Amino acid sequence: MVTEVSKAPDSRQRFIDVAVRLFTQHSFAGTSLQMIADEVGVTKAAVYHHFRTREDLLNAVLAPLLERIRTIVEEAEAQRSVSARAEYMLSGYVDLAVRNRDLMSVLAADTGVIDMLRSQHDLGELVDRQVKLLADVSPGPAGIISAAVVLSGIVGAAGKLLVVIDEEDLKEHLVQTGRRALGLRAPRAPKSA
Amino acid sequence: MVTEVSKAPDSRQRFIDVAVRLFTQHSFAGTSLQMIADEVGVTKAAVYHHFRTREDLLNAVLAPLLERIRTIVEEAEAQRSVSARAEYMLSGYVDLAVRNRDLMSVLAADTGVIDMLRSQHDLGELVDRQVKLLADVSPGPAGIISAAVVLSGIVGAAGKLLVVIDEEDLKEHLVQTGRRALGLRAPRAPKSA
Repeated sequence: MVTEVSKAPDSRQRFIDVAVRLFTQHSFAGTSLQMIADEVGVTKAAVYHHFRTREDLLNAVLAPLLERIRTIVEEAEAQRSVSARAEYMLSGYVDLAVRNRDLMSVLAADTGVIDMLRSQHDLGELVDRQVKLLADVSPGPAGIISAAVVLSGIVGAAGKLLVVIDEEDLKEHLVQTGRRALGLRAPRAPKSA
Repeated sequence: MVTEVSKAPDSRQRFIDVAVRLFTQHSFAGTSLQMIADEVGVTKAAVYHHFRTREDLLNAVLAPLLERIRTIVEEAEAQRSVSARAEYMLSGYVDLAVRNRDLMSVLAADTGVIDMLRSQHDLGELVDRQVKLLADVSPGPAGIISAAVVLSGIVGAAGKLLVVIDEEDLKEHLVQTGRRALGLRAPRAPKSA
């Protein structure tokens, strides 16, 4: 038992990694704890040792990503102008979407996941703040609709890799597309790394 | 038996309507023929009378939509300039996305559905043609990435209604966002209906 507990972090992470793959392949609703156990090569009881429900596992999968989104939103809100706030939100979101392609598609596309998240987290409020940061560039429904296109479109485009392209170039093109869609000017004197 | 067959078209459509609702609620992978039977209030055998597999039912659900997309792509390809082709594709796609919000989210967001469609239809080729019609506005990866953002973003934004807005206004804002994202000028002398 002591050995089992000391091994826990690794096997926990192993379940999370397999869950990400199965969720993206079969959707959240289409993936059972049994499938995850089969894929890892353990019994269902071994999965239950770490996660009581499929929802627990999904929470463990998505928690770091949601935390990162929250940080970006908060840092964006601390910027001094409407355009600086939108620019910060846009580039942070692009970075996150490109780095976490598979996870972001699970988060954004799967209605089962979204329903679960909305009921357990304050995701609705977080999404509203993301939308507002981008929408404020243009008044009225036009701004909100552009923001929604940009947020959905970036995740969708990053998820389905349509071209063989360097990750940094992909980010740059996504940010530029987002700026154009929002009617946001490129910030002056951008620092290149 | 004769009576049953003569009633077929109606009950067939009833199954399709329920399937659309359950697919959008629970994803394709998360919806069984048994769930559809339960929701309609019939036995599973009654569903089997019309659809042998869940895939058959999904095909029946999506066939009219795919046919419409194919028509838009073909008509867009027949336009005379790069910008006219992109404009036709963009406005046709926006119209389709707004009219078929639920179905389009099933089609676009559910990886299980996409895998199934890719194996049974020539959807990959159709998507490539859609992307090309929009991507040709800008050279290289920039054009392809903008096209991907626009196609994903329109479906995503139309699917999650973020504002109370008239359907025609929503379409207009989506088209304008798409034009900006693609770097496409509004066509001259637009006819208003």
